Amino acid sequence: MLTDAQLSQVTIILVRARNPANIGAVARGMHDFGFSSLRVVNEFMPPLEAAKSAVDASEVIAAAQTFPTVAEAVADCTLVIGTTAVGERALRHELLKLPEAAPRIRDELANETARVAILFGSEKTGLSNEELSHCQWLLTIPMHEHAGMRHASMNLGQAAAVCLWELVREAAPEQLRPSAESLKRSQVRGDSPARPDPVPSGSLERITELFNEVIEKSEYTRRHASNSDPIHIRRLVRRIGIDAIDAPIWMGILRQILWKLNGGRE
Amino acid sequence: MLTDAQLSQVTIILVRARNPANIGAVARGMHDFGFSSLRVVNEFMPPLEAAKSAVDASEVIAAAQTFPTVAEAVADCTLVIGTTAVGERALRHELLKLPEAAPRIRDELANETARVAILFGSEKTGLSNEELSHCQWLLTIPMHEHAGMRHASMNLGQAAAVCLWELVREAAPEQLRPSAESLKRSQVRGDSPARPDPVPSGSLERITELFNEVIEKSEYTRRHASNSDPIHIRRLVRRIGIDAIDAPIWMGILRQILWKLNGGRE
Repeated sequence: MLTDAQLSQVTIILVRARNPANIGAVARGMHDFGFSSLRVVNEFMPPLEAAKSAVDASEVIAAAQTFPTVAEAVADCTLVIGTTAVGERALRHELLKLPEAAPRIRDELANETARVAILFGSEKTGLSNEELSHCQWLLTIPMHEHAGMRHASMNLGQAAAVCLWELVREAAPEQLRPSAESLKRSQVRGDSPARPDPVPSGSLERITELFNEVIEKSEYTRRHASNSDPIHIRRLVRRIGIDAIDAPIWMGILRQILWKLNGGRE
Repeated sequence: MLTDAQLSQVTIILVRARNPANIGAVARGMHDFGFSSLRVVNEFMPPLEAAKSAVDASEVIAAAQTFPTVAEAVADCTLVIGTTAVGERALRHELLKLPEAAPRIRDELANETARVAILFGSEKTGLSNEELSHCQWLLTIPMHEHAGMRHASMNLGQAAAVCLWELVREAAPEQLRPSAESLKRSQVRGDSPARPDPVPSGSLERITELFNEVIEKSEYTRRHASNSDPIHIRRLVRRIGIDAIDAPIWMGILRQILWKLNGGRE
């Protein structure tokens, strides 16, 4: 099982969930497996008092936060994962099946500065391409293929419960994996393998904005409009795999370019 | 994943489920993971047309069967497993956590004559002791323990989805485990390990009835009333672990005893 600290590093984000009962079911599944951080991205907060299936999960519901946009909801998260039923969309995301995704999430959680967001889309349409563009990679729950039928999508509460169960059902005992502290020490000593700290999505989004300014100013946007869609640019920046060491370097480079594009005057 | 044949050897049995939406959610989870056999033990069939969350699962719902008693619902099943949230009840059942339960169920399914029932109780009370007495062993989904709070129980649809996911999430490739056919051959040749065929619950119930008749006729029941509760006797018979080779032997022994107790006349 994950430690209490690691459980608190995971945030479930429901994007445009329509049915308060589904939000309640997700909260209940979170409570059952020890997760507590729930965020809802909606134009207005759904009436969660109506989330009757959320017995036992009142604390999760009471502490749930609403955000107007995905960007704001994931701003402090270092790893943002989208869930999808139908596999890869237009954007070239890496797609992991749940059993492969869970160990990667647990690896991320070994770093105590990490904060992992798992996004679930609306019951009807899932996550849009714009919403997916905030994600580093996608996970899917492998389902049975029924001959001649359209691909099924899971009920929101059930999908969340299955994903959270997969995260907690087994985890290497704490003593078997290097702690975040020992990883930092090995980094200082120059040992390998050392993993730099992850970077919050808010920093990635600032880098993305700088990037957009740069390609705008450079007139790339005007000449190659089809490649300059903000959604594609956001994905592009996520694919770079920027960590905490790289982030300030990228910012510096982009600011420098922008300064130059703006005429380079002090 | 399990083979299509193995998926069809699993039956989900909902006992006194109150909410048609929950039955629908269970059906949907079954459909998502490729299971098709749903049985409902209720005094009257709940209005499943109202099971709105059962999109995609209409075939499962349409094929669902209703039974008036658990005994009838499990009669053709060779392994009957109860689910419980709170751990062991009054009856001394073996209790397995889901990750240990799933491989044992898959082992059972390797025998093509096996039929596995997984029972879920009512949303409010779970399975009664009488209902549990039909089960060979129990499984529980390990949940987070919240300090100072009563033990949570999962939402029915979510619990079923998590159990079914655990069954299909990984299974040794077919070629890596001995087929039922090869097991039978090894049995004929006297090789080890050989596993006899499992026995349907209907046979166990007939043995139980004979057993009850025997202890009644023997006046054990009158002298040791507290040990003779039919529920305890049923559990006792299940604990014996009777297989297809043993079953006729047990029947023969009990019939013989009963004949003798009845005076032994032709």
